[in-house]
Amino acid sequence: MEDKEEKKISAVVIRRLPRYYRYLGELVENDVQRISSKELSEKMKVTASQIRQDLNNFGGFGQQGYGYNVKYLYDKIGKILGVNEPHNMIVVGAGNIGRAICNYSDFSKRGFVIKGLFDNNKELEGKEIAGVGIYSTDKIKDFIAENHIEIVALTLPKAAAKEVASVVVEAGIKAIWNFAPVDLNLPPDVIVENVHLSESLMRLSYAIANNKE
Amino acid sequence: MEDKEEKKISAVVIRRLPRYYRYLGELVENDVQRISSKELSEKMKVTASQIRQDLNNFGGFGQQGYGYNVKYLYDKIGKILGVNEPHNMIVVGAGNIGRAICNYSDFSKRGFVIKGLFDNNKELEGKEIAGVGIYSTDKIKDFIAENHIEIVALTLPKAAAKEVASVVVEAGIKAIWNFAPVDLNLPPDVIVENVHLSESLMRLSYAIANNKE
Repeated sequence: MEDKEEKKISAVVIRRLPRYYRYLGELVENDVQRISSKELSEKMKVTASQIRQDLNNFGGFGQQGYGYNVKYLYDKIGKILGVNEPHNMIVVGAGNIGRAICNYSDFSKRGFVIKGLFDNNKELEGKEIAGVGIYSTDKIKDFIAENHIEIVALTLPKAAAKEVASVVVEAGIKAIWNFAPVDLNLPPDVIVENVHLSESLMRLSYAIANNKE
Repeated sequence: MEDKEEKKISAVVIRRLPRYYRYLGELVENDVQRISSKELSEKMKVTASQIRQDLNNFGGFGQQGYGYNVKYLYDKIGKILGVNEPHNMIVVGAGNIGRAICNYSDFSKRGFVIKGLFDNNKELEGKEIAGVGIYSTDKIKDFIAENHIEIVALTLPKAAAKEVASVVVEAGIKAIWNFAPVDLNLPPDVIVENVHLSESLMRLSYAIANNKE
């Protein structure tokens, strides 16, 4: 007997979930309790039928003429996305991006708790950024074990990023948030989410060059 | 008569170009003059046939047994991506991410020249970050016109990002690099490249939650 709650959700729908989660989060903040697929469709600029198709994956809680229960849907999608429980993370590299991540309070609101910032610069050791302690990079392995770290953000130059990536993977890390402009080539059970800012800018310059034609 | 140089390159190949550009740039830096599709394939972890197919779009300069001319290919792809000529940009929002972008020298190396940083905080006016002057947000429109600005980076909270986006689009901007967790809903001739960091983190937490199953 198939449990409807457990049915497999397609990768395409999964990719759309963070955006649903963002919109539903805003509705929750504004105390909206119910929303129809039509209203949500107007807000999100996708068709109502796409919304109904996507959200039907989560069981029969969209009732005709009654709309979706916003909080239920928000919590449900949050659970699928794994943001219903906190994830401990560390940031390696106390440069501009590393500091910006530590300073950005939205991540901890979403349950991503930054437990430490690591850098090779001994002068930074013992200092803090936005309440996050700075440690020497040679302490990473012990720190990961002792603090149940699940995610490592790499905000380092590319050579250093590759080096630190293999160290943290040895320490058991399975999720890396990589800001270095390099492919890390790690074992297949390690998930790497790349944020390649220069490549993002190039997509803009490509579009500018093409628009002019 | 079809000019081979001018033939239409598919969107899928275009999406792969920044990565080719990055690898070729590293080869140029290391004074490598020629590379075979096999060597490039090993470096980039894609099949040699994929590389040959992709690069054949740019004319017949991959010769059997002789390899690709690295510098030629690098310049050619750079031209397609529009990074062969400089693009002036401004950053709006002098918070952590905005400052990090100004501090990051790689963008100017790629031809993305940051001409100014804008913020509502009057106390910052007249100061500099990494040589980039800070201006009051109410001067954006004049500044865009006078400095031939093509790209605007928005590193602001979401409500402010929407507001500033409509101001700069009125001033003629067609390319926006959006870091705010919001959909800007601008006219179709305005290209928006989103960097949604929270959504990127959620893809990691989803993968962690799924790996455990």
